[in-house]
Amino acid sequence: MTSKSQKHWTGDVSSLLRVNSGFRLDRVDAEATPGYGRRKRDSIEDLVDGADELSELQERLFSASRAPGTDAAVLLVLQAMDTAGKGGIIRHVVGSVDPQGVSLAAFKKPTPEELEHDFLWRIRAQVPGPGMIGVFDRSHYEDVLIGRVRELAPADEIERRYGAINGFESELVGRGIRIVKVMLHISPREQRDRLMERLDRADKHWKYNPSDVDERMLWPKYMAAYQTVFERTSTAAAPWYVVPANRKWYARLAVQSLMLDALHDIGPRWPAAGFDVEVEKERLRAT
Amino acid sequence: MTSKSQKHWTGDVSSLLRVNSGFRLDRVDAEATPGYGRRKRDSIEDLVDGADELSELQERLFSASRAPGTDAAVLLVLQAMDTAGKGGIIRHVVGSVDPQGVSLAAFKKPTPEELEHDFLWRIRAQVPGPGMIGVFDRSHYEDVLIGRVRELAPADEIERRYGAINGFESELVGRGIRIVKVMLHISPREQRDRLMERLDRADKHWKYNPSDVDERMLWPKYMAAYQTVFERTSTAAAPWYVVPANRKWYARLAVQSLMLDALHDIGPRWPAAGFDVEVEKERLRAT
Repeated sequence: MTSKSQKHWTGDVSSLLRVNSGFRLDRVDAEATPGYGRRKRDSIEDLVDGADELSELQERLFSASRAPGTDAAVLLVLQAMDTAGKGGIIRHVVGSVDPQGVSLAAFKKPTPEELEHDFLWRIRAQVPGPGMIGVFDRSHYEDVLIGRVRELAPADEIERRYGAINGFESELVGRGIRIVKVMLHISPREQRDRLMERLDRADKHWKYNPSDVDERMLWPKYMAAYQTVFERTSTAAAPWYVVPANRKWYARLAVQSLMLDALHDIGPRWPAAGFDVEVEKERLRAT
Repeated sequence: MTSKSQKHWTGDVSSLLRVNSGFRLDRVDAEATPGYGRRKRDSIEDLVDGADELSELQERLFSASRAPGTDAAVLLVLQAMDTAGKGGIIRHVVGSVDPQGVSLAAFKKPTPEELEHDFLWRIRAQVPGPGMIGVFDRSHYEDVLIGRVRELAPADEIERRYGAINGFESELVGRGIRIVKVMLHISPREQRDRLMERLDRADKHWKYNPSDVDERMLWPKYMAAYQTVFERTSTAAAPWYVVPANRKWYARLAVQSLMLDALHDIGPRWPAAGFDVEVEKERLRAT
C-alpha cells in the first residue's frame, strides 16, 4: 500500500485479517490490534486522514460510473454478534463519505413475503448500483448463521446455501462489484459489558432487547456457525476478514483500511467529458 | 431559540427566510446572509457545533420511533436551479448525522412507469418512515416547475397539482412528519461562474451536462414558476424557506438551523424501556 493515510500500519492489515485455509476463529484475540503500531489516541487522527482519502475515492468511483461501461461498485458486508459495533462502523467509517454515494441495507428478520422467496431474493434487491458503496448491515449470511443455530431451515437447505452464496457473490464480482466481507469479533465478556452499559443508561435502553441475552446464551453455537461460514465461503473472489473489535477504534481503522484497499484496487478515474468543453464554454459565455 | 449552537444568529433565521404572504422572489438578494452576525471563517466552527446538536437530536428522533405510537419524522425538500448547492447541503449538513437515520431520494426525469401514474405516486413511495430524516433532492415540485416551464403537462393539470400538493403535504403533517421546504437561491451570475468552474476543471466535468445551459436560458420562466409555487404552496402547515445561496457557507448554516428548529419542535425523547431493567441485569449477570 502506498497511499498517504496508510503509513501508520506496520503490516498489511488486509493479509493479517484475511481468512485463509486453516483459519480458526477460536484462535483470534478480540483484544488485538494486528498491524497497527500506534496508540488509541493517535488512531483518531489516522481515522480522519483515512476518511479524507476514502471520501475522494468514493467521489471518483461515483463519477466514473457516469461514463458508459463502468459498473464498478463496492459492497461492504457486516456481520457480528450483538453490540460488536456494526452501527459504529456505519456511523464513523461509512458516514465519513458523501451519503449520496452510499446505499445502506439492514437485513432484519425476514417478512412473510420475503420468506416466500429464495433467501437471496431480498438480498439481490439491495445490491449496490454502479458507482455506489453499498453496505449490508447483516446479510445473506444470517441465513446460514441464525438459520443454522435456530434451525430455521432444514439441514440440507442450509447446506445448499453455502454454494448458492458463493455463486451469487461470484456473479457480483463478475459484474465489477468488489465485495468486502467483515466479521467484527468481540469476546463474550466484552459483549456482557456492552449489554450492561445499555441497561445502565436510560439513553441506551432503546438499543437493548431481551432477546439479546437469548442469543448470547447460544454463543458457542454461533461461533461454530461462523467457523463453517468462513470455511465454506471465504473464496479468492470474495474473502472474509475477521476484525478484532473489542477495541472499537481499531475495528474502525481496520475496516476503513479494507475499504480503501478495495477502492484502490478499482482505481476509479474521473471520466472524460462526453461533450466538447470549448463549445460548451462558448455557449455558456453567450448566456 | 435557546439551544447552545444557535447563539450566532442575530435574528430568527426561520422567520427571516420564511415565505409569507406578499413574498417576492425577485427581491431576495442571493448574496445576503440574513440573521448571521459573524464571518465566513467563524461559520465553520458554528456548523460543527450545529452538527453535534443535529446528530444528537437525530438519534433521539430515531430512538423515539422505537416506542409504539411515535411516528414523528422530518422531511427536507430541496429545490434549486443547477449548481445552487443541493449536493453540498446533503454532504455537509445531512451528512453530519448517522446515515442509518437518513433516507435520501433523488427525483430525476420520471421513468415511463412513473409517468403512467399520478405525479405523487413515486413521491409517496419515498416518504420517510417513523424516526427518519428524509431528504428529497428535487421533489414533487419539479412537476410544477420544469413541468410548467417545459409544458410537460396541460395547463389545467399543472393547476390541479398545486392543490394536490397541499393536500398531500397536509396529510404527511397530520401523520407527524415535519416538512422543511427549502429553495436555495443563487443569482444567474453566480450560476455562470459555477458552471464555468465545472468546465474549467477536468475533475468536475462529470458534473456538467450540456442541458444545464438549456435550462439556464429559461431562467426568468423558472423564477416565475417558483414565484407561483411559493404563492400557492407556502402553507401554515408546510411553509417554504428561500435561502440565499451565493455564499455556500451561509446556505449550509441556514438549512442546518431550519432542521434544528424542526427537530426541537418535535422534541424527541429517549423512549422508556419496554422491559424490566433489573430483571434483565439479573439475566445478563447469569450468563
